[in-house]
Amino acid sequence: MGRGDLTPESIARLEAGAVVLLDQRRLPDEELELRCESAGEVAEAIRTLAVRGAPAIGVAAAYGYALAAERGEDLDAAYRVLADARPTAVNLVWALEQMRGDPTSERARALHIAEVDRCKRMGTHASALFGPGTKALTHCNAGGLATGGYGSAVGALRAAWEDGLLAHVWVDETRPLLQGARLTAWELEALGIPHAVIADSAAAHLMSRGEVDCIVTGADRIAANGDSANKIGTYGLAVAAAHHRIPLYVVAPTSTIDPATPTGAEIPIEERDGGEISTRFHAHNPAFDVTPAELIAAIVTEVGVHRPPYGASLPLGAVG
Amino acid sequence: MGRGDLTPESIARLEAGAVVLLDQRRLPDEELELRCESAGEVAEAIRTLAVRGAPAIGVAAAYGYALAAERGEDLDAAYRVLADARPTAVNLVWALEQMRGDPTSERARALHIAEVDRCKRMGTHASALFGPGTKALTHCNAGGLATGGYGSAVGALRAAWEDGLLAHVWVDETRPLLQGARLTAWELEALGIPHAVIADSAAAHLMSRGEVDCIVTGADRIAANGDSANKIGTYGLAVAAAHHRIPLYVVAPTSTIDPATPTGAEIPIEERDGGEISTRFHAHNPAFDVTPAELIAAIVTEVGVHRPPYGASLPLGAVG
Repeated sequence: MGRGDLTPESIARLEAGAVVLLDQRRLPDEELELRCESAGEVAEAIRTLAVRGAPAIGVAAAYGYALAAERGEDLDAAYRVLADARPTAVNLVWALEQMRGDPTSERARALHIAEVDRCKRMGTHASALFGPGTKALTHCNAGGLATGGYGSAVGALRAAWEDGLLAHVWVDETRPLLQGARLTAWELEALGIPHAVIADSAAAHLMSRGEVDCIVTGADRIAANGDSANKIGTYGLAVAAAHHRIPLYVVAPTSTIDPATPTGAEIPIEERDGGEISTRFHAHNPAFDVTPAELIAAIVTEVGVHRPPYGASLPLGAVG
Repeated sequence: MGRGDLTPESIARLEAGAVVLLDQRRLPDEELELRCESAGEVAEAIRTLAVRGAPAIGVAAAYGYALAAERGEDLDAAYRVLADARPTAVNLVWALEQMRGDPTSERARALHIAEVDRCKRMGTHASALFGPGTKALTHCNAGGLATGGYGSAVGALRAAWEDGLLAHVWVDETRPLLQGARLTAWELEALGIPHAVIADSAAAHLMSRGEVDCIVTGADRIAANGDSANKIGTYGLAVAAAHHRIPLYVVAPTSTIDPATPTGAEIPIEERDGGEISTRFHAHNPAFDVTPAELIAAIVTEVGVHRPPYGASLPLGAVG
């Protein structure tokens, strides 16, 4: 796989009795593939972040479920182990529900390609929000790696770049696991989009200096009222953006919306091992936070651009 | 030097023809001393962050200037190389001005001890701001290492802990150089104060959950109107604190106040090498930001607690 060739197949596929995943923990230093030979191994890859990003873990779970069926595993057990791999994103359960009636490799592949197609449609809708010469800021990696191809927030940046509207991208490094500094910078470099990595804590300073025109992020789960869970740090960005009257756009496929979650208060926040922050001192490591709907200027799905109040505008239950 | 024995001498001293500094770049893994045998070597130690923290670099510069006099160096050249070592803190120039008329080891030592005494007085004043059971959050290291002993913001936490008012400290890890995760956690552990390191971007999330009662930071330069430059990320904390109606207290000695700088707009912000953020991709690395006075609930100096409007309340030119 070359740099610029981040195809859906290079990110995840089912072949010869294994789910093959591009190991995102090793990027950008090494482009290694991980072979998962059971649903349990796929769940472990999701848990340990070899594959991450809400839509991408849904895709991986779909392939894992198809693999379980192929191998004659207990499908109820496979469903449970995959659904429980991570708590915050709703896409795991969403993808498994899609697979229930037809647990085949073809179905998983169709779901994967549909997810990538949704990203492309999101990009088209989101680009319309950009003015000429936009300096955007993004957090974590909502790129092709996170969605199985093309990307949600990065897809929006990509479309805006192709439309000649994007001047520069500030990339939050995104502690503790540096998905921005490792993955988003890698994707933007391959796409030829001008960018600079910054410490997460530099974002508000850049906003105060007029260096940020909009913030674009993905989401791990969107509640029915528009409250959105995303990588830890997104909420602080949203508060700073509101202070500086800069719009924050959430770009995510409808598979990320959970009509069964009324508000952000009901979204479980994954607490990860403090060792990801410090191996020497006690650390506290919430992996996500919730941005309340009132701090989000628009939510962009494959259906279109949704504006507040989101309870009325979000396409609940309508996966396009 | 043992863990809990962070004496002023262990942080900086002049002995046997050298300024001896505890090398803060190696902490907490190694407690190594760095010997600087000329003013130029002291300036290099300041520039490369072997010693950092606004009051501590003032102390180091004072010892460096005394060393230059002892060695018969050109004192004008020594002044310039030390004053230019870092741009944001005013303490370098302040300390050198103090040394001009009496460039001796004794004068430098007196300046050092006076700085530590100021910290203790600040701690007493600041503790009065804490209610019982306070959960405080701090950024970077404004501890004994940063001031030559006792600490400014950490001194405040220390005094509040001794007064039975402090329940817990959240320690921002403070990217890119992790002064919080390396230095503040190390100091708090030695002091037996309960704490947990967090990713910088988790602070706003904790505020939203009611886990932060106040924010306490140091400062690298305070303008005459109260605008305060401090480690990058402080401004974002201040914006989030205002959003959650949590007070932010700046604790810094009067040597940090610059009457000649009217507002924060005139404070030069040091841009450091992007390689501190990413060695692989292009990065932008401002080392400080400016928190406007209106986001600061109180500034605590050795003179007392100063409230807005700071133009009237700050003790300009009166080093106690």
